[in-house]
Amino acid sequence: MGKTKPTRAETAESMGARQREISVSEFFLKNRHLLGFDSPRKALLTTVKEAVDNSLDACEEAGILPAISVELRQIAEARFQVQVTDNGPGVVRSQIPKIFAKLLYGSKFHRLRMSRGQQGIGISAAGMYGQLTTGKATRIWSKTKNQKQGHRIAVQLDTKTNKPVIIEDVEVEWLPTFHGEDVHTEPESFRHGTCVSIEMEATYVRGRLSVDEFLKQCAIVNPHLQLHYRVILLKKDNAAAPTAEQQTELIQPEAPWQVFQRAVKSLPPPSKEIKPHPHGVELGVLMAMLKDTSARSLKQALTQDFSRVSDKAAHFICDTAGLSPKARPARIAHQESEALFKAIAEVKLMRPPTDCLSPIGEEQIVAGLQKEIVADFYTAVTRSPTVYRGNPFQVEVGLAYAKPGENQDLGGDDPIRVMRFANRVPLLYMGGGCAITKAVSSVNWKSYGLPQPKGSLPIGPMVIMAHMASVWVPFTSESKEAVAHYPEIVRELTFALQECGRRLSVYLNRRKRAAEAERKRGYIEKYIPHLALGLQDILGFPEPEKEKVETNLKDMLERTRLQV
Amino acid sequence: MGKTKPTRAETAESMGARQREISVSEFFLKNRHLLGFDSPRKALLTTVKEAVDNSLDACEEAGILPAISVELRQIAEARFQVQVTDNGPGVVRSQIPKIFAKLLYGSKFHRLRMSRGQQGIGISAAGMYGQLTTGKATRIWSKTKNQKQGHRIAVQLDTKTNKPVIIEDVEVEWLPTFHGEDVHTEPESFRHGTCVSIEMEATYVRGRLSVDEFLKQCAIVNPHLQLHYRVILLKKDNAAAPTAEQQTELIQPEAPWQVFQRAVKSLPPPSKEIKPHPHGVELGVLMAMLKDTSARSLKQALTQDFSRVSDKAAHFICDTAGLSPKARPARIAHQESEALFKAIAEVKLMRPPTDCLSPIGEEQIVAGLQKEIVADFYTAVTRSPTVYRGNPFQVEVGLAYAKPGENQDLGGDDPIRVMRFANRVPLLYMGGGCAITKAVSSVNWKSYGLPQPKGSLPIGPMVIMAHMASVWVPFTSESKEAVAHYPEIVRELTFALQECGRRLSVYLNRRKRAAEAERKRGYIEKYIPHLALGLQDILGFPEPEKEKVETNLKDMLERTRLQV
Repeated sequence: MGKTKPTRAETAESMGARQREISVSEFFLKNRHLLGFDSPRKALLTTVKEAVDNSLDACEEAGILPAISVELRQIAEARFQVQVTDNGPGVVRSQIPKIFAKLLYGSKFHRLRMSRGQQGIGISAAGMYGQLTTGKATRIWSKTKNQKQGHRIAVQLDTKTNKPVIIEDVEVEWLPTFHGEDVHTEPESFRHGTCVSIEMEATYVRGRLSVDEFLKQCAIVNPHLQLHYRVILLKKDNAAAPTAEQQTELIQPEAPWQVFQRAVKSLPPPSKEIKPHPHGVELGVLMAMLKDTSARSLKQALTQDFSRVSDKAAHFICDTAGLSPKARPARIAHQESEALFKAIAEVKLMRPPTDCLSPIGEEQIVAGLQKEIVADFYTAVTRSPTVYRGNPFQVEVGLAYAKPGENQDLGGDDPIRVMRFANRVPLLYMGGGCAITKAVSSVNWKSYGLPQPKGSLPIGPMVIMAHMASVWVPFTSESKEAVAHYPEIVRELTFALQECGRRLSVYLNRRKRAAEAERKRGYIEKYIPHLALGLQDILGFPEPEKEKVETNLKDMLERTRLQV
Repeated sequence: MGKTKPTRAETAESMGARQREISVSEFFLKNRHLLGFDSPRKALLTTVKEAVDNSLDACEEAGILPAISVELRQIAEARFQVQVTDNGPGVVRSQIPKIFAKLLYGSKFHRLRMSRGQQGIGISAAGMYGQLTTGKATRIWSKTKNQKQGHRIAVQLDTKTNKPVIIEDVEVEWLPTFHGEDVHTEPESFRHGTCVSIEMEATYVRGRLSVDEFLKQCAIVNPHLQLHYRVILLKKDNAAAPTAEQQTELIQPEAPWQVFQRAVKSLPPPSKEIKPHPHGVELGVLMAMLKDTSARSLKQALTQDFSRVSDKAAHFICDTAGLSPKARPARIAHQESEALFKAIAEVKLMRPPTDCLSPIGEEQIVAGLQKEIVADFYTAVTRSPTVYRGNPFQVEVGLAYAKPGENQDLGGDDPIRVMRFANRVPLLYMGGGCAITKAVSSVNWKSYGLPQPKGSLPIGPMVIMAHMASVWVPFTSESKEAVAHYPEIVRELTFALQECGRRLSVYLNRRKRAAEAERKRGYIEKYIPHLALGLQDILGFPEPEKEKVETNLKDMLERTRLQV
């Protein structure tokens, strides 16, 4: 039996001897709920999400119209093989191990540009989870345009050192035949690409928090994506088959591919990388940038390493700080960098460039909603880009409102449904902790004609979709499920929601008046024959004249109604 | 002006060239909201919390009754010097830079034992935030029992490499005179200890989310703590004094120390370090443990590296897995470790030892509530320890209910107040995302006599405090503000809350009946004189007899009331 150690009366020395470094992998292995791997159900979604995010980013960066296939193959009661294949540019062989089996490794963290991935954690974390729960390695097939052959590499993550361990590394033909490319409509586009396959403890459940829902929403906000999806489940009654041989026999052989056809044949406008804006840079970061710059003079550092700093602005800053524009940046000591920091705060600069962002656009949002949600009224607002903590961001809101009874999924007595997106990625979990939900709940929807319990979502047959696009989305955790409550972000969301609300209110009022007029017209119409009869009685005109009077009265009524 | 780069038509090669490692410091610097540094107000609280957590842990491990002083000194409009001093064992010189200026470094992560700190991030993150916002280094004074002199070390964190940079390292006398030790009641206990001082952008606000509230709650759940606290604010009208000299003159010189006296003179029973329990170990971890063990045989590895595995159990496991007990652990290949894993799941074992936990205890909780909350009814429940994902944990709930109007702070029409604690640390922020709040909201309080809107906190003049003690508290983010929703934890909380609820219901029913009886008695008492008069009329007894009858009737009424 394991013995317990007495621990009282430690000394500084005995405690010091136990201090050691914690590898980032060990940290996240123990805290895997932070990465979205707290349950077998969520683990499946998180894995698909990370793989699809990477594929979309890679395709868009390489200028390739993305075609992605997602396959979930059940291999035991609570075990799945997740396989995601894309037609992207592929990954050069030397980078594969680190990209797929090392946490905090990537190309997107250090640049200011909108992309789905940003942390360099996701796909390696999925592999780490697979390894933890099944002991199996992550397998990657990849072929770049310039390679004659593809590669198949199997890697594991050494969690003690956060380094990849290569288990297998062979040249193979791209693409592997088992992958199901027979159903792809564009096999020629699959001449290069990447396929990642992870075996893991997982359970497949349908519903609002499922892979199905994620991929559906993904297709809505990425209309340029061609997506193939299938789930191969074990036959239920034999799911607990004890040996590997039996399980293989039991697999349903003919699960069909579900295809989400791409709606547009062009990529979204490319988002560009930008330099940091001086007004969003904190003192400590400014100091580090001055230390590391390749510029030879302070003026050059200011104009070259930052966006929106003209020669004139650089001179103004140097003058205000009492520093020479020719000073060597690295030499600027602490006292001076603080003066510089204060001077920067005083100079007027253009706002950061915003071509680093790639919003969906109002038309596309309405088109996406119309494709997905049966409703009577659609609208969308894309706000102008703005800035939080120096990071450009942009907010978009779409709204769909169904007539009562028009849409079975939208109960008129239920809270409205909120679909959340960040950099074109659907967010499914943690809605309660998200700035988007908070903004929707804090708008006063009563003034737009919707009932709303205090501080809650409004009630009605309505869907709101909100998209936050930024060079750096501040998520509430590494699993990237909810946007943090930065006041600037909540404010922009509120403005967009209010604008949609005002339009909804116009629509609802018009509908209300139309219904009212309809009701009145019904009443009047009933009396038109009697009115005509009365007139005939008084004026004594013949029968055909009476019918003409009736028609005239109906016309008048119609005209009045149209003016309502 | 910074130019933007075109980024379309990247290739696998150009993308591969941009891949690089992200240091954990860079990651958290950009995501500092994950660590609790999203606003100047919260930054102040997080810093105090991390420093006090460390001091308490160190004192308890060394068997020292903790005395801690916390000083917040405003030095500009939005800038504070936070200084926390303890009488703990001190830190050996060689460890100071890494402990205070390297993320993911510490002694608590790799052991299974209840402590406040666990991640090795907190205090270094506070220093990193200070450095980011002011450019200043973290200063540490420390003296161990065996050192003749103390040390003063100033360190910064090189965020690119996550390594400490030593700015200053001198021998000084412990303790520094400016620290205010004059008010400490036990100066002799300050012959060794640690003092950490961080300058940072911060704002001081009172209220439910303040440092004041944190320290007050801290004193409640740590009755063995002697705490000194003061806030030195700049005089308001001169707060924006432009130069350092002026600022110094403006400081209010005589801010008094607020003292929280310790209520008990003994430390809580020491919590012990345990080995992992086999039933909570995942396959991947089992494999890593077998690789790294110092044991020579499988049997030895099982009995030595795990808790609760007897020789007999080890033999059973080996038999079931078809492995020799003498097999070399490191040699056990993947296929075999999976068999071993399945065999472990089949063996019956005692639950993990629970002397690794140090709950507060029902008596102490009630005493703490009585000291802090004016109320009429108090109760507390400490559940038996149990296990989530192999980690022992224990849940405690206390409840205080005030008579209407008895406590000004507890409005009878407001939701009840919930005080949350994890390993004796108060949790102030993110209540909405916490398993504790979820458990309180999902208990059916109506059946215990409290109104409760659906799915929300109940309404009433009541405080609930809940404590989760564990060798590893699963927090929802690195800032350690809320407990993650593990079903086992929510279930234990629910049971404890329901037991408190039942006791509350008994109390409320008794009070209701007493009030009812009181009301009836009032009615009857009114009629006693008339009744006596009537009896006198009928029976014709003299005046003194009538008074006697009245007294008898009142006595009867009194006896009946007591029986209610």
